[in-house]
Amino acid sequence: MLIEKLKDIVGPAGWTADPVDLEPHLTEWRGLWRGTTALMVSPQTTDQVARIVAACSATGTAIVPQGGNTGLCGGAIPDESGDQVLLSLSRMSSIRALDAEDYSMVVEAGCILSDLQAAAAAAGRMFPLSLAAEGSCQIGGNLSTNAGGINVLRYGTARDQVLGLEVVLADGTIWDGLRSLRKDTAGYDLKQLFIGAEGTLGIITAATLKLYPAVQNVKTAFVAVPSAQSAVELLAALHQDLSDRLQAFELIPDRALRYVERHVPSASIPFDNGHPWYVLLESANAMDDETLERHLLRLLEASIASDAIVAKNAAEAAGLWHLRHSISEAQKKEGASLKHDVSVPVARIGEFIDAATSAVEQAAPGARVVAFGHVGDGNVHFNVSQPGDDPPHAFLAQRDAVASVVYDMVASFGGSISAEHGIGQGKREHLRFYRSETELDLMRTLKAALDPQHILNPGKVI
Amino acid sequence: MLIEKLKDIVGPAGWTADPVDLEPHLTEWRGLWRGTTALMVSPQTTDQVARIVAACSATGTAIVPQGGNTGLCGGAIPDESGDQVLLSLSRMSSIRALDAEDYSMVVEAGCILSDLQAAAAAAGRMFPLSLAAEGSCQIGGNLSTNAGGINVLRYGTARDQVLGLEVVLADGTIWDGLRSLRKDTAGYDLKQLFIGAEGTLGIITAATLKLYPAVQNVKTAFVAVPSAQSAVELLAALHQDLSDRLQAFELIPDRALRYVERHVPSASIPFDNGHPWYVLLESANAMDDETLERHLLRLLEASIASDAIVAKNAAEAAGLWHLRHSISEAQKKEGASLKHDVSVPVARIGEFIDAATSAVEQAAPGARVVAFGHVGDGNVHFNVSQPGDDPPHAFLAQRDAVASVVYDMVASFGGSISAEHGIGQGKREHLRFYRSETELDLMRTLKAALDPQHILNPGKVI
Repeated sequence: MLIEKLKDIVGPAGWTADPVDLEPHLTEWRGLWRGTTALMVSPQTTDQVARIVAACSATGTAIVPQGGNTGLCGGAIPDESGDQVLLSLSRMSSIRALDAEDYSMVVEAGCILSDLQAAAAAAGRMFPLSLAAEGSCQIGGNLSTNAGGINVLRYGTARDQVLGLEVVLADGTIWDGLRSLRKDTAGYDLKQLFIGAEGTLGIITAATLKLYPAVQNVKTAFVAVPSAQSAVELLAALHQDLSDRLQAFELIPDRALRYVERHVPSASIPFDNGHPWYVLLESANAMDDETLERHLLRLLEASIASDAIVAKNAAEAAGLWHLRHSISEAQKKEGASLKHDVSVPVARIGEFIDAATSAVEQAAPGARVVAFGHVGDGNVHFNVSQPGDDPPHAFLAQRDAVASVVYDMVASFGGSISAEHGIGQGKREHLRFYRSETELDLMRTLKAALDPQHILNPGKVI
Repeated sequence: MLIEKLKDIVGPAGWTADPVDLEPHLTEWRGLWRGTTALMVSPQTTDQVARIVAACSATGTAIVPQGGNTGLCGGAIPDESGDQVLLSLSRMSSIRALDAEDYSMVVEAGCILSDLQAAAAAAGRMFPLSLAAEGSCQIGGNLSTNAGGINVLRYGTARDQVLGLEVVLADGTIWDGLRSLRKDTAGYDLKQLFIGAEGTLGIITAATLKLYPAVQNVKTAFVAVPSAQSAVELLAALHQDLSDRLQAFELIPDRALRYVERHVPSASIPFDNGHPWYVLLESANAMDDETLERHLLRLLEASIASDAIVAKNAAEAAGLWHLRHSISEAQKKEGASLKHDVSVPVARIGEFIDAATSAVEQAAPGARVVAFGHVGDGNVHFNVSQPGDDPPHAFLAQRDAVASVVYDMVASFGGSISAEHGIGQGKREHLRFYRSETELDLMRTLKAALDPQHILNPGKVI
């Protein structure tokens, strides 16, 4: 009866129970989590979402919201019971308004991230959120996981881009908080509750987002450094020199370049001589064409950097980014790998990588650490490839043991076991060990207050 | 018995019941709110705060936290019952750590804002929060009210400066969330709850704050514009031209300059010919010495600006800021005034000021509107001076009527009745009319969940 009601709400084009249609929505794309559902509804309006949630609330039925299903922690996948209704936001994909003079836009949850970047650019503005899945991930998912990506150093995370939200609450009430205000202290800042909550406290249906001036004169450099810690020193120095003009700062280990060299023929490696570590960085709005070169030269003389090239044109810059974006693909070809999306205080990244690498190599002999990531914001993708010749399953069986080694080290550095991917199902059991009882209690209090029936994405986060 | 217990917790130097000592803590500095208390405790450690709150929780006694008592809405003033314990954070004023390489510092709630700015500068960094009361306001109060000020255009509000918090919860539990992470998605972002909650959900005892690169080559300009709306156009154009290098953008009406001319002899007015509106703006890290001049020249040619001067040195720049900071003092000398700290979408500021001015002049004939403020972030201080010759009390009796006219106009522009001063006692009754029942319910739900006994700053915000 609930199912018939839900079908009525969305109309014939707005639901499916066909196993073939459902398939891509039931599996996390790497295949780590898989669920089932009796029905996927795809509402087209906020009002339809509200009526769906109200109907589910009346029967105590669980709802799993899903955007582009590009997440890495199973946060958008229903459980295996078949009792959870899957709610896809894909058909809510309008840009309701874009105001260049106000530097803001109002968008629906199902908008694809790259479409929003393009709409901003067409209006002479920039929307800075940028990450690998941008061609298929949806902004509702980005906000629900507080996504990060490559521009956090300068622009902050998804949370920092939000001026207002429209949210359907657990009882089906619509909260219209779509304000476009830069300063607003009239009561509690409710939008903060729903950002990063992975759909467990309410369902984000639309957002008012900040736009920024388009950047000019982007310069891309590839710099060799003698150690991970020198990358941190390079960052601190360049951040002072370039201030906001430094917008990306990615750390790459030599091992990752060797993987790329072996497996991605389209990528070319800039330096002949192997260095232990590299940094890919980007500056924008530089004072003049030589600003970045000048600063890099000084840092080479100070031995903070060992070698450096600055891309001469857009094609060369794209080649450097291609190198960076090929790491995951290349690592896949080296066999099974265990991935850990973690963060530590920026100044301690070098120290952390060295300590965690030793600990993992001791715990899993022969394992090959590939630690790379968005060092400008303290985010390390601490990935571990299997020993060369072992069968993958033997290595994958060490998943929890290796995770504990990495997360214990993260905790001892005051870090977080999830930097930008969220908790979902994947890290829920881990979270208990790495947040205090006080903090977990606060989270449970919030969940109970906002979703007393526990129908919004149950089994995720907390 | 509770009182004896509280005295024991803080020791002889940590409490007062002396009416003379208490006096400055019982009155909002403009004299609009006044309360009483049997005891003010001034703990020196987080542990003492926790024990105080636990003791008050056991007896259901209300606690009013207070920082520098520079607020404008009575948020830190106890009620008149004498039953509320006043908790001053003033003696918790240590900078626990400052890490220049990590661009962060850990500070206690009672630190004076200008001391934090100075500590950052001494380490070659900048802490950007800056507002008129910075010489006496405390960071705990700044965070609890999500303070704004003059640098929000570039750096965001107090909320945006926070990496982590330490908070004493309503039952006396300490939540240690003093992480220094730029990316952290491990569960709900609990710190957001307490920022801007005016001490009603927990008591902030310490914070980890972001630092920024020190700015260089600051340029200050004073620009005449033909209308408030042209100021918005000037902002949109300069924001695109200068990007992040534009860090302050303040709107000043000619009437404010005339008040300053009459009452503040130390201030000098830059233009001989009266223009209706002026903008005081600041850029930093400019490409070269002529960048700002070049852009202003183009905007003069496009008639977006009518006249402009750029300060030739720091003394001239200080003179221009002195003019801006003299407005409140000068307005006081023009008689009684009614103040409204409001925000609207940035692009609609001109339109809003025009409409609200007409409405107020109609409702209160002879009243003189002085609308100025941080236009870069949509924040207008919409102040109204009494008609020249009326007795002040007759005008002040119109307080609520004028507020309703202004706030109704704010609401019709999608704005907020509190931009940067908070709700406190002063706007609590108004809030009900300008936020939806859904939103107010959500706020009440949060309050009930986090402070079920309603002992934390009761009677404030919600």
